[in-house]
Amino acid sequence: MGKYVRTFGEIPGCPEGWKPPSGKRSEVRLAGLHAHDIAGISGTAHEGADAIVLNGGYPDDRDYGPVIVYTGHGGQDPKTKKQVADQNLDDSGNAGLVKSKLDGLPVRVIRGFGEKSSHAPTDGYRYDGLYRVVRHWFKTRDDGFRVCQFLMVKIGSPYDVSDPDYSDDIVIDDASAIPHVPAEPASRTKITVNKINRRADVVKEVKSLHTNRCQICGDTVELPNGPSSEAAHIQAVGIPHNGPDVIGNVLCLCPNDHTRFDNGALYLTDDLKVVNALTGADIGSLRTHPNHKIEIEYVRYHRACWVKEP
Amino acid sequence: MGKYVRTFGEIPGCPEGWKPPSGKRSEVRLAGLHAHDIAGISGTAHEGADAIVLNGGYPDDRDYGPVIVYTGHGGQDPKTKKQVADQNLDDSGNAGLVKSKLDGLPVRVIRGFGEKSSHAPTDGYRYDGLYRVVRHWFKTRDDGFRVCQFLMVKIGSPYDVSDPDYSDDIVIDDASAIPHVPAEPASRTKITVNKINRRADVVKEVKSLHTNRCQICGDTVELPNGPSSEAAHIQAVGIPHNGPDVIGNVLCLCPNDHTRFDNGALYLTDDLKVVNALTGADIGSLRTHPNHKIEIEYVRYHRACWVKEP
Repeated sequence: MGKYVRTFGEIPGCPEGWKPPSGKRSEVRLAGLHAHDIAGISGTAHEGADAIVLNGGYPDDRDYGPVIVYTGHGGQDPKTKKQVADQNLDDSGNAGLVKSKLDGLPVRVIRGFGEKSSHAPTDGYRYDGLYRVVRHWFKTRDDGFRVCQFLMVKIGSPYDVSDPDYSDDIVIDDASAIPHVPAEPASRTKITVNKINRRADVVKEVKSLHTNRCQICGDTVELPNGPSSEAAHIQAVGIPHNGPDVIGNVLCLCPNDHTRFDNGALYLTDDLKVVNALTGADIGSLRTHPNHKIEIEYVRYHRACWVKEP
Repeated sequence: MGKYVRTFGEIPGCPEGWKPPSGKRSEVRLAGLHAHDIAGISGTAHEGADAIVLNGGYPDDRDYGPVIVYTGHGGQDPKTKKQVADQNLDDSGNAGLVKSKLDGLPVRVIRGFGEKSSHAPTDGYRYDGLYRVVRHWFKTRDDGFRVCQFLMVKIGSPYDVSDPDYSDDIVIDDASAIPHVPAEPASRTKITVNKINRRADVVKEVKSLHTNRCQICGDTVELPNGPSSEAAHIQAVGIPHNGPDVIGNVLCLCPNDHTRFDNGALYLTDDLKVVNALTGADIGSLRTHPNHKIEIEYVRYHRACWVKEP
């Protein structure tokens, strides 16, 4: 048995709908889809989570198909499976799912026969595609124990929106709490999935090189599970700018400086000084890293969007 | 002729596809769709822009149907229509579109027969639905003059995403620069439009009461067109939290504190003290406004998501 190589996104040879021919969970691991044979979450605090298994292990799970409320790992008695302690973010699986949320990493969802839901396979296991973690929180159960929960939406589905507040697109039809699922636009699915897989690598690399420290102000936004930051394109991607999604076109910024940079309140000179566009003041040098080369053509493109030069 | 009442969103009696029976622009104004008979943008810096007309006035416009690159107002000689000066954000129409972008206000798009595009009507004017402004920038034209431009996407279309970087969903098929437009999911359109109209009022009111000052740190993020902030729900909307979209459930925060609040790094006590969840330290009182009553039930819901209480 080889070492599990953590990969984010699709695994070649295992398209959506793939089932292990033997029906065994270990074959899911050997295919490279999930690191473990028992634990639900495949991931670490540092790398993020690349996959989860839904197999009926936690009664607080809710499976609506393209939308899942997933319960984290921990606090169960291994023999009786009863909750005997609180869950927390020290658990590497739970911390991994938070990391995947913050970095926008795609998470493979595998459903097993043990799940009591109309979306589960009747036997064995099935790979059901890529999901995004849009929100997490803690819930106090009726027995008083706390569990960590994650709202996950299928990438490319109508619920796949970057602002978690927009999860109210999901309409609960009746008291049985089954959300209304509009028909999915097939052509959009493919486009979105391709995009996410591409961006995730760049985002991860830039944030990691700068350990989530803002390249403009030097601060990090500290969260309970560690520091966080945003990956900001210099020359915007998408029409009409069509900037490339490469590390030389991305900065690691705090959310406030990301807003300032995207709205022209800050720009960069050719020698990477940061200028306050409102006052014209040079407010210091961009923090750089030797392995993060910023391409000057993107800096010039961004500046031309906000400053008239002779 | 009555005074124009600026209204954001749909106008009763003027559904998408509505055309003025007389074919005249003045009837568009009288119907309450747009404030002016000549200017392209209906809006002010303070209120935001509620509507635009696309009628071929600026050669830098690009109309892809659900996606529009719209050129701002100003700098043209009124007689020759030639560009003779730079555009800027002192213009109330341009500043209004930036305000609509920052506050998420829906903008009515009206196309006129003067537009040279397959999406324009052959005669008169037509109301073509609600769009969102996702990005703005300045472009230097070949003649050296600067124009302000706005990327707008139709609400409910596959391009309607809150993160402007995701505008790369738009695939340019060929050199004619016509983007590929996947079929739109009809059922989703309605849901999204209802949601946006609802949120826009709450967002506008909260930001206005606090003049974009963060209720936690007291800072504002200053942009070239004025201060900016984010409207943050206390009890999250959408499943499974289902918090209401009302002013008593919304805070005016800077992007950094919004990230901290949504990830449990900060929470509020019943007497509206702000607590740093990482250290347990009371870091001061929430800044309040007499006309912004925060409902304590939402504060308690948010706190229960992040703190275990006895």
